[in-house]
Amino acid sequence: MELREYTVIGGDLRNVKLAEAIHSDGHCVNLFGFKNAGFSSELQETDDLETAIASSDIIIGPLPCTSDNEMLNAPFHDKKIHISEVFKIMKKAQLFIAGRINGKIMQMAQAYNIRPIDILEREEMAVLNAIPTAEGAIQIAMEELPVTLNGSRVLILGYGRLGKVLAKMLSGLGAEVYVATRKYSDAAWLRAYGINSVYMDGLDRYLADMDLIINTIPDKVLDQAKLELIEKESLVIDLASKPGGVDFEKAGQIGIKVIWALSLPGKVAPVTAANYMKQTIYNILQELGV
Amino acid sequence: MELREYTVIGGDLRNVKLAEAIHSDGHCVNLFGFKNAGFSSELQETDDLETAIASSDIIIGPLPCTSDNEMLNAPFHDKKIHISEVFKIMKKAQLFIAGRINGKIMQMAQAYNIRPIDILEREEMAVLNAIPTAEGAIQIAMEELPVTLNGSRVLILGYGRLGKVLAKMLSGLGAEVYVATRKYSDAAWLRAYGINSVYMDGLDRYLADMDLIINTIPDKVLDQAKLELIEKESLVIDLASKPGGVDFEKAGQIGIKVIWALSLPGKVAPVTAANYMKQTIYNILQELGV
Amino acid sequence: MELREYTVIGGDLRNVKLAEAIHSDGHCVNLFGFKNAGFSSELQETDDLETAIASSDIIIGPLPCTSDNEMLNAPFHDKKIHISEVFKIMKKAQLFIAGRINGKIMQMAQAYNIRPIDILEREEMAVLNAIPTAEGAIQIAMEELPVTLNGSRVLILGYGRLGKVLAKMLSGLGAEVYVATRKYSDAAWLRAYGINSVYMDGLDRYLADMDLIINTIPDKVLDQAKLELIEKESLVIDLASKPGGVDFEKAGQIGIKVIWALSLPGKVAPVTAANYMKQTIYNILQELGV
Amino acid sequence: MELREYTVIGGDLRNVKLAEAIHSDGHCVNLFGFKNAGFSSELQETDDLETAIASSDIIIGPLPCTSDNEMLNAPFHDKKIHISEVFKIMKKAQLFIAGRINGKIMQMAQAYNIRPIDILEREEMAVLNAIPTAEGAIQIAMEELPVTLNGSRVLILGYGRLGKVLAKMLSGLGAEVYVATRKYSDAAWLRAYGINSVYMDGLDRYLADMDLIINTIPDKVLDQAKLELIEKESLVIDLASKPGGVDFEKAGQIGIKVIWALSLPGKVAPVTAANYMKQTIYNILQELGV
Repeated sequence: MELREYTVIGGDLRNVKLAEAIHSDGHCVNLFGFKNAGFSSELQETDDLETAIASSDIIIGPLPCTSDNEMLNAPFHDKKIHISEVFKIMKKAQLFIAGRINGKIMQMAQAYNIRPIDILEREEMAVLNAIPTAEGAIQIAMEELPVTLNGSRVLILGYGRLGKVLAKMLSGLGAEVYVATRKYSDAAWLRAYGINSVYMDGLDRYLADMDLIINTIPDKVLDQAKLELIEKESLVIDLASKPGGVDFEKAGQIGIKVIWALSLPGKVAPVTAANYMKQTIYNILQELGV
Repeated sequence: MELREYTVIGGDLRNVKLAEAIHSDGHCVNLFGFKNAGFSSELQETDDLETAIASSDIIIGPLPCTSDNEMLNAPFHDKKIHISEVFKIMKKAQLFIAGRINGKIMQMAQAYNIRPIDILEREEMAVLNAIPTAEGAIQIAMEELPVTLNGSRVLILGYGRLGKVLAKMLSGLGAEVYVATRKYSDAAWLRAYGINSVYMDGLDRYLADMDLIINTIPDKVLDQAKLELIEKESLVIDLASKPGGVDFEKAGQIGIKVIWALSLPGKVAPVTAANYMKQTIYNILQELGV
Repeated sequence: MELREYTVIGGDLRNVKLAEAIHSDGHCVNLFGFKNAGFSSELQETDDLETAIASSDIIIGPLPCTSDNEMLNAPFHDKKIHISEVFKIMKKAQLFIAGRINGKIMQMAQAYNIRPIDILEREEMAVLNAIPTAEGAIQIAMEELPVTLNGSRVLILGYGRLGKVLAKMLSGLGAEVYVATRKYSDAAWLRAYGINSVYMDGLDRYLADMDLIINTIPDKVLDQAKLELIEKESLVIDLASKPGGVDFEKAGQIGIKVIWALSLPGKVAPVTAANYMKQTIYNILQELGV
Repeated sequence: MELREYTVIGGDLRNVKLAEAIHSDGHCVNLFGFKNAGFSSELQETDDLETAIASSDIIIGPLPCTSDNEMLNAPFHDKKIHISEVFKIMKKAQLFIAGRINGKIMQMAQAYNIRPIDILEREEMAVLNAIPTAEGAIQIAMEELPVTLNGSRVLILGYGRLGKVLAKMLSGLGAEVYVATRKYSDAAWLRAYGINSVYMDGLDRYLADMDLIINTIPDKVLDQAKLELIEKESLVIDLASKPGGVDFEKAGQIGIKVIWALSLPGKVAPVTAANYMKQTIYNILQELGV
């Protein structure tokens, strides 16, 4: 592997771990945007943005990149970091990799002649992210439930990436797993993997009998009618990103405990999450022949 | 479920089992094209094609439909069955379902105002078919190898439907499974499922050390150069359809045992194969709202 | 199942859940010894010990029964409960079931003509207890480690009941599991289950390379010499009962994080633990033909 | 490992593979008793028994040792080999290892001052033998059944070594596995492993609904009454050694297919079986400090 110079700008704990992981592979890594982080790292923060970027090959931004289309997400920094400033300093040969780069940022990048790469659009990153997310959900379930997952009845809503990893892990713990899906081919896969499948339109008669229900579908699946079928002792974990897949207000009124768990990878396994980002970045570079 | 009238025309043992399975669900089933089958079935063969089709709702043909674009595949019948004749008898409201319906047959169908449905193009059918195929390959490996699969080193080439089911089952038996793939996202899935992944361009150093190599890639993957790396005691099973994924001639010269196993579902598990066809046909009807 | 009258006296949260579980099977249940419990239960506490015991068939005590050979373990009660008093009230036909009934208590029981049954000496109870214990250890590991268990290297010391359940569950999550054992037959079982085995005398070269080490052996396995081989980032969880399997002082000096986790079933899954107790009690009654 | 001289006398294909495996570890191996074997081996047969034994450290006999208490089992030899002759030639320092060494042979050995070791009495050998036996049974089931094991309902009678390995492998293939047992602790283990358990006294209502029933209990479990509950399409595989666990005559009258499969390891996986014998012999030597 060719040694390169990286710059990691802003982001959360994962980005620090990412910088360290890249550094321990022998690469040179500049760190910027963690002035107030309060954690010690083997890496020194570079003083100014210009120095941090100057001789670098790859600039890595936060995941997600921004929340206001102007500043980089840099919760640990003492000042704001303007995306436009980063792009202005960057040279054409330099690569910008970050997460969830929207149309606005794309336009800005084009204006500065920068070609950004969205790491979250990579299929392998999406799959890998499902691993710490699933494990985080399992951890929450273990913490909340007065029963073991082994022997529990668990219903997973959706059999996309997250549903697949959840079903695998929960079966591996000895839970009795049911996966609700709309697609015949999902049911076929569940047959192959020896896991029970439920069609969405027959969901109602399963809801009442579960110790744990985990939603992975980005759609208001658990509305009032469905929530009323669920037993009070059941735990519901919603992994769907905003606006979520559960009518939280109704759930509260009915008295069902719902935990809406977002951004689990960075919270429960920052080192693993950082390693997966590193792997994906290396894959990107290899594909580009950089 | 609404009761309907089905007609099963031609095909192999699976189609007989299919007819029986549909019949045991309470539907009326006409059977035609098995005069010389020599097996007893609870169903009586209808005397002539016209009677068999007349009042039927769904006409089910063979998988694959034809090998010469003129006759239905009907290995157990005493006479030839012209596809055009079937289409001629059929009314517009009747459905024709069969496997691998090519362009020629499609055109013919349009000429007769028939809308055929290719069951093998259904995603769930393709997935379900992978189950008896994988199990058939495992049976062959058990029969041929002087070692148990438990504890054996097995290399699977490809991580499509078949590769996924094989990897799951072989791991379940306690084999040490490696899957070779070209895609980063496949490697990510293998990570999630706890199975070893190998990138195709690093395949060479794994080939020598395997008890069993199973190819699922429809491409000449195991050419002379690769075959020369494989040990003489290893068994190679090729599941790729014609022209196959192994240079069979070279393999023979080098002295490596290769088994090219095609059409396994009908051979190793006709009843399961028929059940999966039945399920898929019911899915089709439900989607059509028939 | 014949309906009976039970009395549950003292113990922790599990005993309350046990009382509720027995009650929901239709039996009559008297509860005594939870005056200060502070949790609401569907069951009412009986006022005095004599009334609680009088017409009961089975008296269930705490797990463990006592810590001073005089009083029942009753952490939630406002007064002390003398074991001798319980025995004095009991009639010969009544059964006394509790956990870890030592020689002293046995003698006392004989003096009062009572035949006590130690539920923890039941093989099925010991196996069932391993389930919440293993899951509790996994929960701790998930909470403490900055990496996912999926993809982690985990070393389990010992392949008794607990080691077996841990190995199964951790493999199911996708961890790379190694089990250290002294017995050839354990290695044979691990071969059958497709899990890596390590002989104890070759343990040293594995210690350095683990993300997680879980000890189940009731013996000082991880002494200074072994601890010095372990990496600082590794987490050690000790499940061995007192005096534990790790030299905790040395571990602290060296800087290795060790979590000594005891009594997990009651802490992480009281409802499951109570259900397993109930099942075991029913088994006892069936065997006795009561 | 210290290099030693071995002699393999008589036995079946496994013993030849065993001799080859020991030889390929660098040891010197004499082979005797395979004159008519008709298979080529890298090892040469020694001409006479005396030469074969003279300078050897370990003499390995057949599994089982004898069927008439006089001759070694040597199906591939042209002459009879008297056990007494082997013992007479052997010196006190030499070790005799074989399978199922009964009281008669033991007495004979003592008379000649020989200490024989029964390899089949070793716990690890018994466990390891369960692996090829289970896989052999699965192979037979795959060959005989018109359905896949994936998705089939399978009932295993007994949860000893063989039952455990079968349950693990069949679950791994995606079968719906039920294990019938008499012991509460077995049911507890099945709970931990996520497999369905059935108590023997409730067996009857499960018998009718199975695709496959595998007996591992050395007792007439499937008598007429039980056999009459089984469906005609079900396959029964009996793995119990003589006299077997099924009333074969009644089964035939009723019309249920029963396959009584004995000595599977040598038949389905002689190389694996030989390797497990080799490993066990090495374990024996290490324990003896030889």
